[in-house]
Amino acid sequence: MKASIGVGLIGTGYMGKCHALARNSVKPVFGSGPQPRLVHLAEVNAAIAQTKADEFGFAKATGDWRELIADPEVDVVSVTTPNAFHAEMAIAALEAGKHVWCEKPMAVALADAERMAAVAKASGKVAVLGYNYIQNPLVRHIGALLEQGAIGSVNHVRLEMDEDFMADPEALFYWKSEASSGYGALDDFGVHPLSLLHVLFGSVARVFAHLAKPYPTRPTKEGTARAVETFDIASVLFEMGRRDQWRHGAQPLGPGPQGAHCAADFRVQGLDCL
Amino acid sequence: MKASIGVGLIGTGYMGKCHALARNSVKPVFGSGPQPRLVHLAEVNAAIAQTKADEFGFAKATGDWRELIADPEVDVVSVTTPNAFHAEMAIAALEAGKHVWCEKPMAVALADAERMAAVAKASGKVAVLGYNYIQNPLVRHIGALLEQGAIGSVNHVRLEMDEDFMADPEALFYWKSEASSGYGALDDFGVHPLSLLHVLFGSVARVFAHLAKPYPTRPTKEGTARAVETFDIASVLFEMGRRDQWRHGAQPLGPGPQGAHCAADFRVQGLDCL
Amino acid sequence: MKASIGVGLIGTGYMGKCHALARNSVKPVFGSGPQPRLVHLAEVNAAIAQTKADEFGFAKATGDWRELIADPEVDVVSVTTPNAFHAEMAIAALEAGKHVWCEKPMAVALADAERMAAVAKASGKVAVLGYNYIQNPLVRHIGALLEQGAIGSVNHVRLEMDEDFMADPEALFYWKSEASSGYGALDDFGVHPLSLLHVLFGSVARVFAHLAKPYPTRPTKEGTARAVETFDIASVLFEMGRRDQWRHGAQPLGPGPQGAHCAADFRVQGLDCL
Amino acid sequence: MKASIGVGLIGTGYMGKCHALARNSVKPVFGSGPQPRLVHLAEVNAAIAQTKADEFGFAKATGDWRELIADPEVDVVSVTTPNAFHAEMAIAALEAGKHVWCEKPMAVALADAERMAAVAKASGKVAVLGYNYIQNPLVRHIGALLEQGAIGSVNHVRLEMDEDFMADPEALFYWKSEASSGYGALDDFGVHPLSLLHVLFGSVARVFAHLAKPYPTRPTKEGTARAVETFDIASVLFEMGRRDQWRHGAQPLGPGPQGAHCAADFRVQGLDCL
Repeated sequence: MKASIGVGLIGTGYMGKCHALARNSVKPVFGSGPQPRLVHLAEVNAAIAQTKADEFGFAKATGDWRELIADPEVDVVSVTTPNAFHAEMAIAALEAGKHVWCEKPMAVALADAERMAAVAKASGKVAVLGYNYIQNPLVRHIGALLEQGAIGSVNHVRLEMDEDFMADPEALFYWKSEASSGYGALDDFGVHPLSLLHVLFGSVARVFAHLAKPYPTRPTKEGTARAVETFDIASVLFEMGRRDQWRHGAQPLGPGPQGAHCAADFRVQGLDCL
Repeated sequence: MKASIGVGLIGTGYMGKCHALARNSVKPVFGSGPQPRLVHLAEVNAAIAQTKADEFGFAKATGDWRELIADPEVDVVSVTTPNAFHAEMAIAALEAGKHVWCEKPMAVALADAERMAAVAKASGKVAVLGYNYIQNPLVRHIGALLEQGAIGSVNHVRLEMDEDFMADPEALFYWKSEASSGYGALDDFGVHPLSLLHVLFGSVARVFAHLAKPYPTRPTKEGTARAVETFDIASVLFEMGRRDQWRHGAQPLGPGPQGAHCAADFRVQGLDCL
Repeated sequence: MKASIGVGLIGTGYMGKCHALARNSVKPVFGSGPQPRLVHLAEVNAAIAQTKADEFGFAKATGDWRELIADPEVDVVSVTTPNAFHAEMAIAALEAGKHVWCEKPMAVALADAERMAAVAKASGKVAVLGYNYIQNPLVRHIGALLEQGAIGSVNHVRLEMDEDFMADPEALFYWKSEASSGYGALDDFGVHPLSLLHVLFGSVARVFAHLAKPYPTRPTKEGTARAVETFDIASVLFEMGRRDQWRHGAQPLGPGPQGAHCAADFRVQGLDCL
Repeated sequence: MKASIGVGLIGTGYMGKCHALARNSVKPVFGSGPQPRLVHLAEVNAAIAQTKADEFGFAKATGDWRELIADPEVDVVSVTTPNAFHAEMAIAALEAGKHVWCEKPMAVALADAERMAAVAKASGKVAVLGYNYIQNPLVRHIGALLEQGAIGSVNHVRLEMDEDFMADPEALFYWKSEASSGYGALDDFGVHPLSLLHVLFGSVARVFAHLAKPYPTRPTKEGTARAVETFDIASVLFEMGRRDQWRHGAQPLGPGPQGAHCAADFRVQGLDCL
């Protein structure tokens, strides 16, 4: 086991800062074991990269993320850039022999996600997506109870996840409002409840969804109104493949047929309802 | 105005009893005004009809509902029979010149419902369906607030309605388990939240639904297992036509485009989750 | 068993109407068995009594409740008058050999309640107080689960009961606003959660309470402001004697000492919080 | 303004680690401004102190907290030791000219708290208690709304705070179970909702409380059962002085008398209810 792990960070927004703080807290939280070294930080230009490297405690800074990936001192790369860049950066890092922790959503297009999965598999490296909720021990405990059949057949699951950070109609148009970011609320945090469904109830068989844009335009810094290209709200009705639910061979104790389907509906909302 | 109103009742199950009790309580609850007279009661045979007429306080009893409809003393007919009979009885009563209060669901097949609506319109009589929730003054108040635009554009509505009366796997197969009763939980009480959506948010544009049968069979009185033919659980995702919402010309105060759509999802469940 | 039971009703307000409707519904709801006959109704004067007797279906009417109690055709007397009259009327009815169903609260003063209990015991008649919630089969089921020790020791119980009927500051001063009615919200409906605590967790060992009058005055019909004499809100913290909880000899399964105390707090509120 | 602030930490338990992590995150979270330097860490002996200093990143370690307080490089002292030591350590640090951030509860005895307050006032130093919830901008916003009279008179406030970390009856007896730690759940986290009441609704006029010990004993490391000396559950009913509520001169908009009292009840619980 290496005494320390060289970390590279691409992107220093909300999640980039979270990754940096998390790496910094490994020693006080977990004590002994290999420690992360904050080796290299990449941003859109060298000046921003240097400022953030100072704040977050990284040794080197670069305005070119390919330099970071080429750095032999970097063992693992955190990809915390806008969604549209995930595929290119994660694939490049894996092909350069780095481990990768890429933020969710995996990619904007299915084909990109499939390429990422294939490269990750071929690389033999550790490739992790930022679905942090499924790491919660509580979720594992729910999964264990379901596998034991503790509540019998599950006929319906409901999840709701609301965020109010775009509730203000005066909040500015930004990268998540751009078409290149995908499906808005559904991509941005709807993937979290979906990740729970996937882990607890198996793969999705069918999806029905309603997406909405309550604010059709948002102001820009220049004071003009720009059409919002992504969705702020999603109501989704899933059918989950139940056979997968009991994948480890346990039988449900309660009533209900094996192999039946389970509906899972959820709502995600990027606006405040107050 | 007539001094009293002659009431005929077809069917004496759960809802038939409710209608009889309600008719009996008109005077103590509302005081003056025309009073119902409990004139004629019909059941599947003369003996049951007589027993129920004694219990509920009806003057005449019959095993043939067409006798009741032909009775000139009957002004209004309550149809509280199993769903499959609603269309035939309600149409016959309207065509005989009676007012009709028919229980929900209106009918099992769309064509039957359309025939009922046409006959009711042509008859000039009062024809009411048993959607009692929409009569609640609270719902009218919600409607008034929506029309005033008090909360701006409504992007999402969620309703849930659970009943536990079929939660026991030992509960017997009965008429609501039969294919002739329609879609089970959705028809039986899912129509109530749907009636609220219709009154408050306008007509339905699209429907996605997941229906389930947690107990594939139920015991019969004879002790055999019979396949359940209707659904016990429904998860439904609606798109409501928003233009209808503001049908009286009021403008929403808040953000959001006119004529946009609104998602409404609901879950109905004929089983206990405990 | 008598073929029918002669009913006398003193008071025709909200609860008096409830008693009349309930008596009228015995046959349709329960079918066979002795039926109530609505014999005699008393109000504050003969004219009001006659009007209400007609509405509710009582045979005789009187402006003097002592005539009703002296009526040999009356077997059971419903006392549904303002709180201040409960003791005098219930005691007189019991002493005249009638069964009594007296509304809650039992009495305004402890001494009155103790006299009522003593007379009821000596009379050998059925004497019931209007604590209808404790008759709910659900509550009995909770009680059975507690006795079986299904959830172990209960350390805390929380009940909340809110009514909005006096939420409007323009609502008129009325008899429940008078000092003779006792403690307001606490007497008026706080006794309901208290009755549940008493039935489920045993007798009260200590009480701490905070009572409030959010509206110090209310308008009268004459248009003047009159000081409210009772309380609209009560926050109450009880200590319940736990030894009583397990009164039928069952032992709790879970952790916790026998004979320990249980706190039960509740809030009653005669005002709308919206 | 100093370029950096020398930090001393006494105690490295749950809250000591929180303080260390928080100091470490100042730069990434807040960017520019004076930065904390982790100067000196004290524990019960030199070995533990050195281990923790390495984990948390402190330059010096000591088994004698008085050495830390005497260290001229230390500007501010975090006191995160068991409750019984707060008074002695905080007072010593203030008298040595240090700023102090002392964890809650302030002290176990009122006299100690009063001494601490007096010394803090005389010292002219910044003395902060660890009531972190009241620093939440949401709470300040609630306070602003109350001051504006946005919801009129507040008649009742209810807070509930539950922790499950002592839910397991096999959880070991530890320092919070000792009589020297004060009142258990009430001292340990009941002070948090109390701090919110104090900030939002003014000072407490009267307190009624019920404290309970669901588990009368807990196992020790040596395998014996030791009597729990503090309380795991508290139900508390407060009367708050309402005149203080409107302390900045704002008048409530709604109904209700000035200077009236407000009840605030809360429940704290150191056990899991599942």
